[in-house]
Amino acid sequence: MSSTPLKNDVFLRALMREPVPYTPLWLMRQAGRYLPEYKETRAKAGSFMNLAQNREYACEVTLQPLRRFDFDAAILFSDILTIPHAMGLGLDFVAGEGPQFERPLRTENDVNALEVPDMQKLQYVFDAVSLIRKELDGKVPLIGFAGSPWTIGCYMVEGQGSKDYRYIKSMMYARPDLLHRILDINAQATIQYLNQQIEAGAQAAMIFDSWGGVLANNQFEQFSLHYTRKVVSGLIREREGRAVPVIVFTKGGGQWLEKIAACGADAVGLDWTTSLGQARKRVNDSVALQGNLDPMVLFGGEQAVREQARQVIDDFGPVGNGGHVFNLGHGISQFTPPESVEILVDEVHTYSQKMHK
Amino acid sequence: MSSTPLKNDVFLRALMREPVPYTPLWLMRQAGRYLPEYKETRAKAGSFMNLAQNREYACEVTLQPLRRFDFDAAILFSDILTIPHAMGLGLDFVAGEGPQFERPLRTENDVNALEVPDMQKLQYVFDAVSLIRKELDGKVPLIGFAGSPWTIGCYMVEGQGSKDYRYIKSMMYARPDLLHRILDINAQATIQYLNQQIEAGAQAAMIFDSWGGVLANNQFEQFSLHYTRKVVSGLIREREGRAVPVIVFTKGGGQWLEKIAACGADAVGLDWTTSLGQARKRVNDSVALQGNLDPMVLFGGEQAVREQARQVIDDFGPVGNGGHVFNLGHGISQFTPPESVEILVDEVHTYSQKMHK
Repeated sequence: MSSTPLKNDVFLRALMREPVPYTPLWLMRQAGRYLPEYKETRAKAGSFMNLAQNREYACEVTLQPLRRFDFDAAILFSDILTIPHAMGLGLDFVAGEGPQFERPLRTENDVNALEVPDMQKLQYVFDAVSLIRKELDGKVPLIGFAGSPWTIGCYMVEGQGSKDYRYIKSMMYARPDLLHRILDINAQATIQYLNQQIEAGAQAAMIFDSWGGVLANNQFEQFSLHYTRKVVSGLIREREGRAVPVIVFTKGGGQWLEKIAACGADAVGLDWTTSLGQARKRVNDSVALQGNLDPMVLFGGEQAVREQARQVIDDFGPVGNGGHVFNLGHGISQFTPPESVEILVDEVHTYSQKMHK
Repeated sequence: MSSTPLKNDVFLRALMREPVPYTPLWLMRQAGRYLPEYKETRAKAGSFMNLAQNREYACEVTLQPLRRFDFDAAILFSDILTIPHAMGLGLDFVAGEGPQFERPLRTENDVNALEVPDMQKLQYVFDAVSLIRKELDGKVPLIGFAGSPWTIGCYMVEGQGSKDYRYIKSMMYARPDLLHRILDINAQATIQYLNQQIEAGAQAAMIFDSWGGVLANNQFEQFSLHYTRKVVSGLIREREGRAVPVIVFTKGGGQWLEKIAACGADAVGLDWTTSLGQARKRVNDSVALQGNLDPMVLFGGEQAVREQARQVIDDFGPVGNGGHVFNLGHGISQFTPPESVEILVDEVHTYSQKMHK
């Protein structure tokens, strides 16, 4: 692991609600298909899994966006489905259809056979983290990440993306005991997985609860938040003499913000349907907030990008004792013109300064 | 139009927050593919549009669920895309892919050429309403419906369902003037369309804002709710000597409930992510609430159906001066076992009685 001191720790300090000179930003899926250089590396690798499993490729695509844009953090290039892949469910990325598992969990026998995977099988991830830290050379902090137990559970039971989550919800309503077993194993695996990322050099950890928002109000606590909380409470929170902040992002979870903010994380990610100004009042600045520009703003041209970025910053308001990390409310679209990202970075870094006086 | 007095007006009274003996229920898409008799009629018709455009078929499938289940309302069998179809956008239902328009609105010229359609082109809908009213013979009230201006706009610009709403949101951020023109025309058309349904015999009107929830917090008012409000304010609200209640349902709109409840409608539909108990406090019983069982509960077996139905009813609590219409939080899945619906109807009608004392 590199011991070079961090040159830019604005992101880490904002997450801990410490004073910073401007609002830091990074973008979910900033290393991705909207960049031609990513597509080139992806083509060389041949497949998504070859890309993710090769430390040099993973490092290369992680660093690509930082060569173009003045982002305040890097995020490990990987996928939330590495854990179920290591569990032996048979992950495949089908062109145009996204990830699919050959052996989804559908029967009691499937569930009984599930085990926390040997972390050796995920060594390629930890190796990539170490290499990226070395290559970053202290430029910006590196974020490690994992899916929430519920969200990876969705893929494990459905076998692929879903519109209605019929298989996992059928299990949830008919055999909640089976689903709880899956989620418990996922939580245990995720703790080990994130802690090994942190030990390899990740300086912040993000948990993506991408599908928490499909749960009913009376199920979210039991089947998603309970297990996210378990993961958060098992994480290494200090390393290399400073805090390792944890961010929890539940897409579509705006209605449950108070509960999510109390899960033990340092920061909560929000999508664009929630007002940041109202959100910080609801949680009384007890956590930092990350978000929440609609990714589609980046298709609106320069004026719209600048105006909408300012609206997000104005909505959060003078930062005071709060903390704000600018981001999109979801991953950047593969069709995004990269020049819109350049404009966004400029606007956020410049306009936000007045909120930090 | 039939002048037979209504034998069961529990649904209409609940919407107006008048005392009723039990919580009425109906299900979104209750006339649909989960019923074998629907599939038979659909096969006879040959295509979805033939089914919707033939008054006898439309009447037949509207009545089918009422022969099996003790629902408290019928809803016209039709589709929210009849208006853009009448505008000449070329609607086609592609097997397995849902509705598609041959000529989506993408350019300034496309938008400038758009006009409120001649309601003569939608006469088949009004004829179906009249026939259904006659055939219902006062058994239960008939609900007419339309999509919200924003929601039908999504299909008109995207050309089909979308994951990211990239085309309409690009227009929204880059050329809001064009989108406002579309939405204004949609609102005018929807007022005429719903009023003619009401004149033909619809006894309540529901506006489906199925895609309102994809909008950013600072865009929802401008691009969705503003136009829904316009529609609501243009509707006939009394007919045949009684109120014609209006229900507005914004899927994913729980965070904006207070604003939606102030749009002039009598009732607000909610999906399963919002607590009905919290919702009625937030709006202080100023409107009735409709919903909000997760449709996937119907895959959980008898015990889950009964338990989860009771949880929804308990969450709403003693009805008092409020109003509750039980429904799912979204359309019923085509894979639902019809026997689960039978159990649901029994549980809601029986268990809810104690809330109405």
